[in-house]
Amino acid sequence: MSADFDVVDLIRAKRDGGSLPGAAVDWLIDAYTHGRVAEEQMAAYLMAVVWRGMAPDELHRWTAAMINSGERLDLAGIGRPTVDKHSTGGVGDKVSLVLTPLVAACGVAVPQLSGRGLGHTGGTLDKMESIPGWRAELPPGRMRRQLADIGAVICAAGSGLVPADRRLYALRDVTGTVESIPLIASSIMSKKIAEGTSALVLDVKVGAGAFLPSVDDARLLARTMAGLGAAAGVRTEALLTAMDAPLGRAAGNGLEVAESVETLRGGGPADLIEVTVALARMMIELADGPDPSGMVDPALVLASGAAYPVWRAMVAAQDGDPDAPLPRASTVAVVPAPASGYLSRLDARAVGVAAWRLGAGRARKEDPVSPVAGVRWHAGIGDPVTAGEPLLELHTDNPATLERARAALADAVTITAQPSPASPLVLERVRA
Amino acid sequence: MSADFDVVDLIRAKRDGGSLPGAAVDWLIDAYTHGRVAEEQMAAYLMAVVWRGMAPDELHRWTAAMINSGERLDLAGIGRPTVDKHSTGGVGDKVSLVLTPLVAACGVAVPQLSGRGLGHTGGTLDKMESIPGWRAELPPGRMRRQLADIGAVICAAGSGLVPADRRLYALRDVTGTVESIPLIASSIMSKKIAEGTSALVLDVKVGAGAFLPSVDDARLLARTMAGLGAAAGVRTEALLTAMDAPLGRAAGNGLEVAESVETLRGGGPADLIEVTVALARMMIELADGPDPSGMVDPALVLASGAAYPVWRAMVAAQDGDPDAPLPRASTVAVVPAPASGYLSRLDARAVGVAAWRLGAGRARKEDPVSPVAGVRWHAGIGDPVTAGEPLLELHTDNPATLERARAALADAVTITAQPSPASPLVLERVRA
Repeated sequence: MSADFDVVDLIRAKRDGGSLPGAAVDWLIDAYTHGRVAEEQMAAYLMAVVWRGMAPDELHRWTAAMINSGERLDLAGIGRPTVDKHSTGGVGDKVSLVLTPLVAACGVAVPQLSGRGLGHTGGTLDKMESIPGWRAELPPGRMRRQLADIGAVICAAGSGLVPADRRLYALRDVTGTVESIPLIASSIMSKKIAEGTSALVLDVKVGAGAFLPSVDDARLLARTMAGLGAAAGVRTEALLTAMDAPLGRAAGNGLEVAESVETLRGGGPADLIEVTVALARMMIELADGPDPSGMVDPALVLASGAAYPVWRAMVAAQDGDPDAPLPRASTVAVVPAPASGYLSRLDARAVGVAAWRLGAGRARKEDPVSPVAGVRWHAGIGDPVTAGEPLLELHTDNPATLERARAALADAVTITAQPSPASPLVLERVRA
Repeated sequence: MSADFDVVDLIRAKRDGGSLPGAAVDWLIDAYTHGRVAEEQMAAYLMAVVWRGMAPDELHRWTAAMINSGERLDLAGIGRPTVDKHSTGGVGDKVSLVLTPLVAACGVAVPQLSGRGLGHTGGTLDKMESIPGWRAELPPGRMRRQLADIGAVICAAGSGLVPADRRLYALRDVTGTVESIPLIASSIMSKKIAEGTSALVLDVKVGAGAFLPSVDDARLLARTMAGLGAAAGVRTEALLTAMDAPLGRAAGNGLEVAESVETLRGGGPADLIEVTVALARMMIELADGPDPSGMVDPALVLASGAAYPVWRAMVAAQDGDPDAPLPRASTVAVVPAPASGYLSRLDARAVGVAAWRLGAGRARKEDPVSPVAGVRWHAGIGDPVTAGEPLLELHTDNPATLERARAALADAVTITAQPSPASPLVLERVRA
């Protein structure tokens, strides 16, 4: 770095609503990553960003500087188009588990580099790790080979990828600076751009169970991320999808793997299939270019069970046993339906908190998660239920958690005499 | 502390514009002072306060919690009313040096517990330390005795007083969170309330050379501080005074002591006398209660030189030699007046920066300051000047600093053909 800046001047500039020049952005990210800017100084800067935002040019430069803090993968030469997907996270969101082998079965390679979950939404790696033997860590060479051979890989992002984000994310987590559109967008997009995918589909969740409940915020985040992708040469589009009720019929690591396998074998809940297929279509379209004439229909591929062998190969390539039974909870408590009628509301956030309390999520990043804990529900939105019949199952190895999980669910369910009209799951497509 | 809080929840609440309940404020200050809340978390909280401010009740509780982090002095029983003064700081502002012995000479004891300067405005202790032998540190017992015997003490605030402020101030200094009215007000008022004074007059500077240039901000700060004083039982009022030109004819530690002595002996510049007498009148009025009928006129006391023996006793009681010559700079460079006419502008900030560059101020709190460095000017605003005659003197022991000091002063002076109308120095009195 030839330029040198006074970090307090930069904090004050952002605090007062200014934008940093590009060289200052480069300096700040580099100096923070290498410990020359203190944690408390970056914390103040991040809160000023939550307040003042970032100008578009500034955010592009910030994201580029984050990427430049580490290595970039090169996925050229694996012999197939690549496309990845990222979800902003929802309760019961096991879409990646189904989507990755599905899109691979349609001929497009999916390098799904994931993180672990923090809070009630759970992470894709946590879910996969409930499969006996499965390992999240893959050296880049093996990752590339698996992508070329099988077309599908779900693994941990290596520590060399965007080290600035690792530090920034840990800091944001303890300083109340997570909820900022430029900070969220740069965190997600720096990792996706650095992993080397040539196209990317974003599943941005909207609603009571989502990180950003309002559709306006979700649309702005989607557009911001798509713009960052486009600027870096990654074809990026987003789908806004509803997250009022949890997705599918289960939330919890092993429970979600079981549901994903069921779906890959041609069964599974309709809402999970709808979102997965919509995302798969976009991914294939973005990977192949704008002409969808020769497109394989992922709905047919999924229903036929043709993606299931890809799942098995993907699991086995990472030392997982696709035939081993998943671990099961020692305690399953049942919550009956409080009335007869139609299930018109199941609160995603309440289900997420209950699953988390049962052991499925972590409060701190060093906490372990339980592979068996979680919640299953016997009816989807609009389905008939009968008073006294089982509605929810609470799975745990720790019965002491049941009381607080039940408390989280106390107001989670609404049953009405008439079925409420179905609300759409797939809301809108967003381009840069 | 019986209550326990999650600091991230508190940061998020403030970030989102909320006010903390009293128990949460108490917990946050206590946990930060004892290292249970990390520096980066408090930094994010402070930036959120710069953004969102504090509700009046919240600020009262915050200030009380800061005071409760340490000891409180008890000045009852020294046999005289006590009144202190605080200035928000200006260039050439040596008012405390004259005011403390002056008010004591009028029969009211002044416990002036001070800090060291950071940046270009310099601190009262730095100025006093240019007196050979003088010591800023006084044990509380000696401080009380000196106050009872002489009625005047200028000394360092002991480390037991408001330890929360020491940590908070150091953190604000490196995180761009100094400029916040509730944070400034609580920092100043917590120390003044803890030192045990029964009344307090605030000199809030307004103008280009002040910390808060706008009169609206200055008035709000004054009112906020007066409210905090009143709530804690300290009769507090403020005077807004102008800080466009520097005060008196010198800025620099030893140079300001010399000017203060000249003023205490019955001489001195008119602007310094005007501000000092206005503050002295308020201090005596607040100390004695609202009836000013029996008031000694501090203007007469100052002009008579009757405060000078109090100064000598105050200096000697802290091992200073009031007869010792002050140290003098080895180099004095002269800047001539660029034109003939009337001095209509002398920029306070430029003079402060020049004095700072010559060695009178510090950039970091561990830096030493020079007792001899500084700037003198031969004319006040409205005075006639002659082209080529000396206008400014730059004093330093380090001639290498002269060039940058001259550069700071390049646009500092305006000379006009006609004298500009005098602008008032004392702007307005502010009550809670």
